[in-house]
Amino acid sequence: MHRFFLPPGAIQADSILFPAETTHQIFRVLRLRAGEQVIVLDGLGWQYRVELTAVNREQGSGRVLEKSAISGEPPVHLSMFLCLTQREKFEWMLQKCTEVGASEFTPVLSSRSLVQDAETLDNKLQRWQRIIQEAAEQSSRGRVPILNPPVDFAAALETGRLQNDAYLVAWEEEHARRLTSSLTGMPANARVAMLIGPEGGLSREEVELARQKGWQAVSLGPRILRMETAAVVSAALVIDWFESRAG
Amino acid sequence: MHRFFLPPGAIQADSILFPAETTHQIFRVLRLRAGEQVIVLDGLGWQYRVELTAVNREQGSGRVLEKSAISGEPPVHLSMFLCLTQREKFEWMLQKCTEVGASEFTPVLSSRSLVQDAETLDNKLQRWQRIIQEAAEQSSRGRVPILNPPVDFAAALETGRLQNDAYLVAWEEEHARRLTSSLTGMPANARVAMLIGPEGGLSREEVELARQKGWQAVSLGPRILRMETAAVVSAALVIDWFESRAG
Repeated sequence: MHRFFLPPGAIQADSILFPAETTHQIFRVLRLRAGEQVIVLDGLGWQYRVELTAVNREQGSGRVLEKSAISGEPPVHLSMFLCLTQREKFEWMLQKCTEVGASEFTPVLSSRSLVQDAETLDNKLQRWQRIIQEAAEQSSRGRVPILNPPVDFAAALETGRLQNDAYLVAWEEEHARRLTSSLTGMPANARVAMLIGPEGGLSREEVELARQKGWQAVSLGPRILRMETAAVVSAALVIDWFESRAG
Repeated sequence: MHRFFLPPGAIQADSILFPAETTHQIFRVLRLRAGEQVIVLDGLGWQYRVELTAVNREQGSGRVLEKSAISGEPPVHLSMFLCLTQREKFEWMLQKCTEVGASEFTPVLSSRSLVQDAETLDNKLQRWQRIIQEAAEQSSRGRVPILNPPVDFAAALETGRLQNDAYLVAWEEEHARRLTSSLTGMPANARVAMLIGPEGGLSREEVELARQKGWQAVSLGPRILRMETAAVVSAALVIDWFESRAG
């Protein structure tokens, strides 16, 4: 069944009024009609099975048949700091890390980051937000991950440190401390920041700066992973570690 | 430094004779010349730092400066049984799972597998083999993973069961047993088979048949993963589990 995150005002007791964009999606793209059912998510941890009562090009509405709690959210709050890289690769990381269970994304401009195409930041943020929301809908997430505007490397280090209990940077020259072993002893509802360098890696100065700010360099194993592989692998390892222990 | 897996005959004591295809790659594509260095891998766990002594369109040769053991191979032998799906997605899984540390691939024809384009099987196998070898070279693997020809679903169940110590199938309706918890107690050098269903999932009959054959259904968490995400996530979790314990 198709799933849609809706803004708070769209859900009133047992009646649903779909926003224009969702109505377009339901009516024109998916070609659903009155009487068919969809899942509506409020982004606060609840899902609603909804029967469509009216769908046309002006308006989409439905009524709630059933409300239930969503179990798809991991206990840990994983905040991915992803260095900017070529467009497809970056968007792919947003999609995959959302599926896997990341809760927050911050694009980071590091010294070896590829500057993307000339599109305005506003357009990029909108497209990234849409990719994240669609991935959250398709993977049965209960919340849409937060997308922050891009920050420079020093600001990423500072924000990550202030807002999280553990702040880790994947580094191919770290051989002693594995990612998962650095999580030992953390409570299930911890906040973890994970920084993934660009193609070509973080510079040695950047890793040194991160360490000075208290970030821990961690290994994802003795193989050299591409940036996008490192992002999804590290997200998967962190989420699994906390979910396994939370029960 | 560029890395190349060479066939056994190409390495004779301290002199290297590159095969025609590698010579082409070195001379025409990478434009390396005599005096420059590359890494040669014998696929048996050794790597050689090699200085090029002659490179032209007819011939490429070099001499060994240093020989050392490779540490990039995981202790576990992970055999991925991947249901066939659209070309880009399938090839992406081969690439990513090689980076992550899988040792063997078997393409599987399940009831919901997408039949790929009309290309001959021979051409497909050659292209898949090249993708796997390139990913192994770039990620510092010590061996090139094995690629088996495609098999049907029943044959996959049988082969996986006979050749491995644990045989697991990722299933979105399994909620109790997580992948990592099913590995408890296994020795570090175990052989693990992991079966990943196609887009749209395995049919209920297929999962039932797998269970009758002794395969364990495992969960990758409460979210719905796309097929390619499930493949790389499950490979990452298995490899990390064994590498963390092997020390």
